[in-house]
Amino acid sequence: MSLNQLGVVKRNIVRADAAAVARLSRLGVATVHEAMGRVGLMKPYMRPIYPGAHVCGTAVTVLLHPGDNWMLHVVVKQLQKGDVIVAACSADSDDGFCGELLATSFRARGCLALVIDGGVRDVRELTEMKFPVFARAISAKGTVKSTLGSVNVPVVCAGALVNPGDVIVADDDGVVVVPAGAAAKTADASEAREANEAEKRKKLAAGELGLDMYKMREALEKAGLKYID
Amino acid sequence: MSLNQLGVVKRNIVRADAAAVARLSRLGVATVHEAMGRVGLMKPYMRPIYPGAHVCGTAVTVLLHPGDNWMLHVVVKQLQKGDVIVAACSADSDDGFCGELLATSFRARGCLALVIDGGVRDVRELTEMKFPVFARAISAKGTVKSTLGSVNVPVVCAGALVNPGDVIVADDDGVVVVPAGAAAKTADASEAREANEAEKRKKLAAGELGLDMYKMREALEKAGLKYID
Amino acid sequence: MSLNQLGVVKRNIVRADAAAVARLSRLGVATVHEAMGRVGLMKPYMRPIYPGAHVCGTAVTVLLHPGDNWMLHVVVKQLQKGDVIVAACSADSDDGFCGELLATSFRARGCLALVIDGGVRDVRELTEMKFPVFARAISAKGTVKSTLGSVNVPVVCAGALVNPGDVIVADDDGVVVVPAGAAAKTADASEAREANEAEKRKKLAAGELGLDMYKMREALEKAGLKYID
Amino acid sequence: MSLNQLGVVKRNIVRADAAAVARLSRLGVATVHEAMGRVGLMKPYMRPIYPGAHVCGTAVTVLLHPGDNWMLHVVVKQLQKGDVIVAACSADSDDGFCGELLATSFRARGCLALVIDGGVRDVRELTEMKFPVFARAISAKGTVKSTLGSVNVPVVCAGALVNPGDVIVADDDGVVVVPAGAAAKTADASEAREANEAEKRKKLAAGELGLDMYKMREALEKAGLKYID
Amino acid sequence: MSLNQLGVVKRNIVRADAAAVARLSRLGVATVHEAMGRVGLMKPYMRPIYPGAHVCGTAVTVLLHPGDNWMLHVVVKQLQKGDVIVAACSADSDDGFCGELLATSFRARGCLALVIDGGVRDVRELTEMKFPVFARAISAKGTVKSTLGSVNVPVVCAGALVNPGDVIVADDDGVVVVPAGAAAKTADASEAREANEAEKRKKLAAGELGLDMYKMREALEKAGLKYID
Amino acid sequence: MSLNQLGVVKRNIVRADAAAVARLSRLGVATVHEAMGRVGLMKPYMRPIYPGAHVCGTAVTVLLHPGDNWMLHVVVKQLQKGDVIVAACSADSDDGFCGELLATSFRARGCLALVIDGGVRDVRELTEMKFPVFARAISAKGTVKSTLGSVNVPVVCAGALVNPGDVIVADDDGVVVVPAGAAAKTADASEAREANEAEKRKKLAAGELGLDMYKMREALEKAGLKYID
Repeated sequence: MSLNQLGVVKRNIVRADAAAVARLSRLGVATVHEAMGRVGLMKPYMRPIYPGAHVCGTAVTVLLHPGDNWMLHVVVKQLQKGDVIVAACSADSDDGFCGELLATSFRARGCLALVIDGGVRDVRELTEMKFPVFARAISAKGTVKSTLGSVNVPVVCAGALVNPGDVIVADDDGVVVVPAGAAAKTADASEAREANEAEKRKKLAAGELGLDMYKMREALEKAGLKYID
Repeated sequence: MSLNQLGVVKRNIVRADAAAVARLSRLGVATVHEAMGRVGLMKPYMRPIYPGAHVCGTAVTVLLHPGDNWMLHVVVKQLQKGDVIVAACSADSDDGFCGELLATSFRARGCLALVIDGGVRDVRELTEMKFPVFARAISAKGTVKSTLGSVNVPVVCAGALVNPGDVIVADDDGVVVVPAGAAAKTADASEAREANEAEKRKKLAAGELGLDMYKMREALEKAGLKYID
Repeated sequence: MSLNQLGVVKRNIVRADAAAVARLSRLGVATVHEAMGRVGLMKPYMRPIYPGAHVCGTAVTVLLHPGDNWMLHVVVKQLQKGDVIVAACSADSDDGFCGELLATSFRARGCLALVIDGGVRDVRELTEMKFPVFARAISAKGTVKSTLGSVNVPVVCAGALVNPGDVIVADDDGVVVVPAGAAAKTADASEAREANEAEKRKKLAAGELGLDMYKMREALEKAGLKYID
Repeated sequence: MSLNQLGVVKRNIVRADAAAVARLSRLGVATVHEAMGRVGLMKPYMRPIYPGAHVCGTAVTVLLHPGDNWMLHVVVKQLQKGDVIVAACSADSDDGFCGELLATSFRARGCLALVIDGGVRDVRELTEMKFPVFARAISAKGTVKSTLGSVNVPVVCAGALVNPGDVIVADDDGVVVVPAGAAAKTADASEAREANEAEKRKKLAAGELGLDMYKMREALEKAGLKYID
Repeated sequence: MSLNQLGVVKRNIVRADAAAVARLSRLGVATVHEAMGRVGLMKPYMRPIYPGAHVCGTAVTVLLHPGDNWMLHVVVKQLQKGDVIVAACSADSDDGFCGELLATSFRARGCLALVIDGGVRDVRELTEMKFPVFARAISAKGTVKSTLGSVNVPVVCAGALVNPGDVIVADDDGVVVVPAGAAAKTADASEAREANEAEKRKKLAAGELGLDMYKMREALEKAGLKYID
Repeated sequence: MSLNQLGVVKRNIVRADAAAVARLSRLGVATVHEAMGRVGLMKPYMRPIYPGAHVCGTAVTVLLHPGDNWMLHVVVKQLQKGDVIVAACSADSDDGFCGELLATSFRARGCLALVIDGGVRDVRELTEMKFPVFARAISAKGTVKSTLGSVNVPVVCAGALVNPGDVIVADDDGVVVVPAGAAAKTADASEAREANEAEKRKKLAAGELGLDMYKMREALEKAGLKYID
């Protein structure tokens, strides 16, 4: 983050290719993360506020300060249909930065979800309106509007680097970030994994051993595995 | 906490005004907490054992020691209709201080809920009987009955000071404590906030920007916010 | 754990007596743990991935290393109907060691559940197929298959010692380990507690005080409890 | 905390009796805490920034908001010789609220130490000038000066209730709060414990068993302790 | 842990071979742990109360309950010269179970150190008398003497299984448990590692690359490592 | 992080301007972080293994996997005089990735320090050789050399984005990252702050109030601060 990134709103960002996003939206986080070589996953403390949400969209990023949600009001004008807000914070904070009113505003602009390395409130209302939030905490603690952060700068959210326009895939297993430039390639690799799994599932359900299916016996023996009675 | 507060049961406490409690019971934790100036909230690790519970009542307080739930048996006789038990502990503990049998006893006296800075067990049974518990942990670990704590002394529960008779409001967003003497004033301020929100929600859903609605543009400009392309 | 326990698969283990397991399967974790004298409970960070699961079976143990799930493939061949896999890890790790494919394989061998001191993924799919997992974390992060651990050695899982063949009881309150040699005795003690509770529940629901029912008044007075007004 | 306690500086507070403070200053935290009946201790995450500090003084309290240290500037004028600042925060925060310049200002007014449920910075400089700080974190993260908190209202700091004027005793074992009204009584009880210990220490060093010295054998036998070979 | 292990003091235990203990006492925890195949290490939250302690002795085990240190008085009579007390707790607890008086008693019997999955107090006095304690927390919070635990039963301490008589090696890097039966073999393997290191250190200090010294280049290339400019 | 960044060693990186690095090396972390507008700080869990270290150098980055330190051997050849290794990990891990031998190798190449979002071991030896390590944990747990990570790719270390060549400043207050392109500008701003402080320190030590020196009274009054008696 360079010095001139505080107090900045970047208006024009390059969003990941829509066709790649559409393909990724049919895939789960575990599959996509695996296909990426196991990088880009946010920390597992990021949890959905209700089970069953599955989101895929393009990142519009926000940098917040603890106890201050001013930039969540500023970001609204920059949202487009299909965007996911990714909000990072300059220090660990469980404050409830977002509630039902803000979410109503986000949705009115076509925004699909909020991913926030901070707290959220009004979770019952958000659950009823089915607006997915992936957050580190639930807290009624409100915030002020007095310190400038930024919109659409690169941020580190829950341990993952997010550039504006990157693809965000989130479901019950967590949140993964696909760099915009790697979206199509990741969709390819993810779909290849997926295609592979139906057949495997059928064999495993029938009792076939992974030891045989994945041909692990030789490697295990070579590594020195011993069977005793 | 003064020296003579261990081993004490205070029988006569002044509960918050019933009319104010009734008004607060129609409001959410986030609204009430906001109306109080953002103080009085318990730490966000306090979570309900099932979603959707909404509780508002007068505090009957208990001071426990780790691994000992004796005072939860003692408190029962002090309960009145509309009370909420607030149990603090003299040291951090995740032990399961309360289960279904104690909850049955609480409910028989008209008690609405348990707020405990400790663990709880029998959560399936408690969920089925719809007895709300807000707790720091779920644990099957039982407790003994051998050390005196106190009932109806001021306690610090999950970081918040609670005096007997204070109003406790709890929902999916957390637990907030309203001092008995401030109940009516807090209800006033909370209702004023609430009245305000329906109109805002409608405007935001129609796509109006918070930037305009809250007249933030000037302040943002003055703070130095820059838009770049 | 002795030096020769890495890279070992023990094939013949003595499972707890089936009749005792059947009796324990009708009991909750809190009751069993209490009947054992309050030992053998795993740490409360072990949580079910969906509410309502209740599992009782015989332990087949696995020792994993962080980031490596090879041994979860190896263990499959050692599973019998009624087993519960108990997976420990040589260092704290939230990685997603197990997903839907492995669970399909476990179930095909009659395995009832997975208890893992690590992470799990595909939680939506696992919930749909009703395969219970008790875990320390949910994480999409996958693992490699390159380091040998062991199968059916004694392990320490979430703070509790588990020997192969021990009985594992798990429900919404947590996970408890009953040593195989103590299964029948624990079932006796647990059933005795259980029998006792129906009558108590009825009395407490009718408003009888635990103070009277458990004859606590004298002990409280002796300990110095004071009632003030 | 009542509604009118935000944005308030209380000028006149009643400090604990100076003679009692002087007596308590010769005693350790463990002894004082024990003498109080094991209440009033702050959570053990409160640690000194260097070993060996031992502080005893009267509390001047501050209520901060995360990321904002304005009130630490405001409090300076309220300090008297022998005071200890106790700073609570309206939500968990590790920000570095205080550094060397503020500490210089505190010391110039006779203040002995800072106890803060938040972060501190410039720890090398603070160590060199031997100004003791007991804090939850060390962090270079600075703060703004834009939101009102309060000075000399009751606060909950690291789980303990502190009223202005209470006695704060802090050393390598932690921080304990002695209510002003209980200072003399606590000094009595603490000194009695202390007097008792020199003799015990001598006996124990000579190999006498606590089992005998404290006459525990009968109680242990009654509780059912069994010796086996 | 079987049912009959509460309320038991086992008097006769088999301590690890003294010659092997003496050899292990010249080795560091990292070396020993490595030689054991990377098992047997306690969790890294176990920290020494002062830097520079290095301890090696035979385990005398204690099982405590939260808030109760009765068994630390009972264990004293079972101590022999060269023993290390390993104290586990039936639930997570940061209470200060042990202080200077108990340590004086331990030392009078020839005990070398205390390893406790709980808290400790009087750390300044313990540091002055150079009695090493490895603990999960420092806390002034005292404990009662009212619930039976056990002495010299197998315990799980900070995630590691410890049998009475096992060897405990502890230094600034942590605490490792060597099963009594594996002590000599572990000393062999540890010394072999150690012998190896002086030569390596010299080469590395002279600037030789580990890439060459450990002949890693081929394996890295085979794994697919790419150098780019 | 794009897909092709695993298994890559980038040889040529652009290090921050040496003159700017030299200027920053005379400044503390708190000052630099403040001058940057309070961004770029690593999480406060990153602590030095001994007090008093002060480091400033250019980042050579490493991406590790949990339990695997292979890349710490690979990075050695890429080190130049004045570099600081910044090691991130693809998942949270407390393993002891680095010890005395590796540090000897780092120092032989002119490397100044290691900053690692993981564990370290041999802390006594590292302290004796005065090689500074800033780490999230101390653990004797060793690692294998079997999975490829990368060298000199952008990494997220303890919540901060680090590009190869960035300036790392670390002292007792934490670790801050200065983007290479902002090094000179940050040195300017930091020195300006520093120059300012000597005068302030003198005034504050003389008892002048920050309220007056910083002219806060008007703003406080405007914000509504009330003084009561």
